[in-house]
Amino acid sequence: MTDFTPPTRRQLLTMIGKAGGAAALYQAMTVLGHAAESQFRGPPQLTGARPGARVLVLGAGLAGMLAAYELTKAGYAVQILEFQDRTGGRNYTVRGGDTITELGSTQKVQFAPGNYLNPGPWRLPYHHRTVLHYCQELGVELEHFAQLNHNAMVHSKDAYGGKPQRYRDLYVDYKGHVAELLAKALNAGALDTAVTVEDKARLLEAMREWGVLDKAMTYSKGLKVGTLRDTLQTKVWETIGFYADHTMQTTMFQPKGGMDHIGKAFAAKVAHLVRLNTRVTRIAQDHAGVTVNWTDTQTGAAGQSSADWLVCTIPATVLGQIDVQVSDAKKAAIRALPYGNSVKIGLEMKRRFWETDYAIYGGHSFTDQPIGLISYPSGNWFGKGPAVLLGAYPFGTGDNPFSLGGYMLSAMSPEKRLAAALEQGSVFHPAEYKAEFLSGASVAWSRMPWILGCCAAWTEDSRAAHYQNLVSLDGRVVLAGEHCSYYGCWQEGALLSSLDAITRLHQRASAA
Amino acid sequence: MTDFTPPTRRQLLTMIGKAGGAAALYQAMTVLGHAAESQFRGPPQLTGARPGARVLVLGAGLAGMLAAYELTKAGYAVQILEFQDRTGGRNYTVRGGDTITELGSTQKVQFAPGNYLNPGPWRLPYHHRTVLHYCQELGVELEHFAQLNHNAMVHSKDAYGGKPQRYRDLYVDYKGHVAELLAKALNAGALDTAVTVEDKARLLEAMREWGVLDKAMTYSKGLKVGTLRDTLQTKVWETIGFYADHTMQTTMFQPKGGMDHIGKAFAAKVAHLVRLNTRVTRIAQDHAGVTVNWTDTQTGAAGQSSADWLVCTIPATVLGQIDVQVSDAKKAAIRALPYGNSVKIGLEMKRRFWETDYAIYGGHSFTDQPIGLISYPSGNWFGKGPAVLLGAYPFGTGDNPFSLGGYMLSAMSPEKRLAAALEQGSVFHPAEYKAEFLSGASVAWSRMPWILGCCAAWTEDSRAAHYQNLVSLDGRVVLAGEHCSYYGCWQEGALLSSLDAITRLHQRASAA
Repeated sequence: MTDFTPPTRRQLLTMIGKAGGAAALYQAMTVLGHAAESQFRGPPQLTGARPGARVLVLGAGLAGMLAAYELTKAGYAVQILEFQDRTGGRNYTVRGGDTITELGSTQKVQFAPGNYLNPGPWRLPYHHRTVLHYCQELGVELEHFAQLNHNAMVHSKDAYGGKPQRYRDLYVDYKGHVAELLAKALNAGALDTAVTVEDKARLLEAMREWGVLDKAMTYSKGLKVGTLRDTLQTKVWETIGFYADHTMQTTMFQPKGGMDHIGKAFAAKVAHLVRLNTRVTRIAQDHAGVTVNWTDTQTGAAGQSSADWLVCTIPATVLGQIDVQVSDAKKAAIRALPYGNSVKIGLEMKRRFWETDYAIYGGHSFTDQPIGLISYPSGNWFGKGPAVLLGAYPFGTGDNPFSLGGYMLSAMSPEKRLAAALEQGSVFHPAEYKAEFLSGASVAWSRMPWILGCCAAWTEDSRAAHYQNLVSLDGRVVLAGEHCSYYGCWQEGALLSSLDAITRLHQRASAA
Repeated sequence: MTDFTPPTRRQLLTMIGKAGGAAALYQAMTVLGHAAESQFRGPPQLTGARPGARVLVLGAGLAGMLAAYELTKAGYAVQILEFQDRTGGRNYTVRGGDTITELGSTQKVQFAPGNYLNPGPWRLPYHHRTVLHYCQELGVELEHFAQLNHNAMVHSKDAYGGKPQRYRDLYVDYKGHVAELLAKALNAGALDTAVTVEDKARLLEAMREWGVLDKAMTYSKGLKVGTLRDTLQTKVWETIGFYADHTMQTTMFQPKGGMDHIGKAFAAKVAHLVRLNTRVTRIAQDHAGVTVNWTDTQTGAAGQSSADWLVCTIPATVLGQIDVQVSDAKKAAIRALPYGNSVKIGLEMKRRFWETDYAIYGGHSFTDQPIGLISYPSGNWFGKGPAVLLGAYPFGTGDNPFSLGGYMLSAMSPEKRLAAALEQGSVFHPAEYKAEFLSGASVAWSRMPWILGCCAAWTEDSRAAHYQNLVSLDGRVVLAGEHCSYYGCWQEGALLSSLDAITRLHQRASAA
């Protein structure tokens, strides 16, 4: 592995391998009550809240707003306290005129009207049924997100003299070489004890057709782009594996016009319950209720809110710095949970040269440079005028939280990030990349003051030790958010966690 | 191979294999002047037609209308004669209220407003640049066509007790089993003379990650859906190979609302030049010009049209039955060209159960039954109300022109076709398929009187013997259409052939 291999792919594969496979993962989710694809059967049917029962929700991201939406329907009086001056949390889209405020820098986004960057979540898998359900319920228009584009590229510094190759060519080469070798081994009798005579014959037929081998069972020169060595150097199997991963499979979706249309749809239901610009400083509970102390970040005024119950969606990175009255085990869980790091950089180009000049419509070109990948927009194909492509997306969580690409880029000023993204991305489109560049914007999640990281980076060990303590109902307090789910780093996790938390809370409130 | 394996996949792979690979095919196209993806550089710059020069075009399909469009721009006086009562040819979409007239049957389509079936072409590859260009030039709105859906299914009568499997599971199993076997052979030293020590180590790493093998280099039980035998029985490598085929790769497009929007866009430019309901009975030429005799199919009246030059896009199946004054070699080529067969069946269902109940958004479920596949609509995802899915698409051309599925279905009455499609497709959606069915429509191309087949089914041998004779400029006559291209059965071929034909015609006309 090179240092800068995009970790999403290997991290996911490693995680699956360690956990005993996707089936084991799903089993774990089922056992723990956090839904896999088939478990979401519609929104919770919460009814019969005790008259006057009040719930305080901390954080107006998707988890917090969904909790408020469903608890209000159930009859609770809900208030949300939100640190930022907007709702949505990581469900976030930046457009021309927006300001991005990181620790140490401020950017004014220059994109043309209609163009945008989704710094956080940007794609919805077909099996994320909770997100898809609420998009339908709240009227969020979804369009196709192009995930697997055979005509996008793969770049490795060590292969083909550093020249990027089309994924389709590498893919055909990979299966051609693998098929030729397996056929050779089969014909040499090397696997005669491992497979039956009948399966051997079928395997040879499979290798011939799948690998497009010739009559001599050789991967033909006429098809070949590179040697076995070239193919192996690109590590294209990581890309092939990436596309096969359950969370990365086709068909995928995106909200038309920006991911924040989901957050806005929730906000249309609950914005009147939200107090913005509110920094929580202390969370206390006793037998009678919960009390939250806060400071208004605009006026500096201190305040206090109370309720019967509390749903806290504050990220663990920030929650760990707040005085919270919960069990020591839960405090330990909050402190034990590391967050992954990620940087996204949007680059607005004068025209869609990747479409017109390269016949690339959506999808990703991967590289082992720090930017990890560049990704082409799925919306407005064939459009005229400027368009925004994703110029970097290094990502690290879980077993591989320390993506050097993410740390390198987040350590840079926004200006230097853009320069690095332009330099590295030029490998794919050397003639156009810098020449067509108009403006850029970036978000380094570890520098966003309201979260200080990208998303929860559970490892198998930390999950085994702390997960149940994190999600348990503690007196009158329950936590929710992607960090409290088995779908870490996905909106689906935030929503499932929220539904799970409020269902348990409602059960206790009803029993009380 | 079972009798009813959908032939598209194996036929394409076989063709590539026989021709020496895709590279060889492209080389052939380049040499012969028929463009591969990189050759289309914009529309032809034909200028300076001799004042008053007239061109007669036979057939108002895409090839004929493009010829008329570009020749008119070049200054020629153009007339088109069309047999049918509509323009478009195989660029054809049927909707509620339409009548489908085959030899021996008539169907009235019952689909709800907005629903449709594309009986002919239905998807546009990203590298079909001529089609994409004219869609842009003529303002045809394109949307994504979901080609590869990991969550769609594969069914084989002989595997898994006839129970369909999700493609994603079979795919993961396939690579798991293949990786485990190759790793075993590598570790046994069976390939030590074939690969270097360094490549062997890399290959083992590749097998471990690509196949998601455990530390013992075994494909884990936790991931496995079926045994090696199960996996081989499904012949899933054919599906994997299908998706890797150049013409079948992602990203693909479709005109929003129906393929005929392309034909209608051309018709908006040239419809005033078209004489409909005109059956050509004789094509003659001499040193002075061309003369075409015809009969008006509505009035029975005979007529004659003359011009300086002729572009004939009449399919070879029909042209072979007309008295045509061309060389014996061209007549032999016309007669030597067999046509493939295909049937498409559209089934309107009350609701999108494949989306709501199966999380299948677009893509194809393959079967080795005569229907070949069913395909889910790419447009209007999450829509409420009735939707049309493709209930059958057996297809045979080229080296495998005799798809039994196509012949079996086309031999049936439209009613029996629907019954067969419902019966066979139920294997994928047993509880819903018949229960949700509203109405259906089908087109058996061999029974369409104006073409008597689906599209040209060149073999390598027939192409070697006859292709150049078919496309050569013969006096004042040139043929055009998908059958005169290396992109047989694709609209791209029809358009490229047309551009090639009129460019050569214009050269001769200018020199004359």
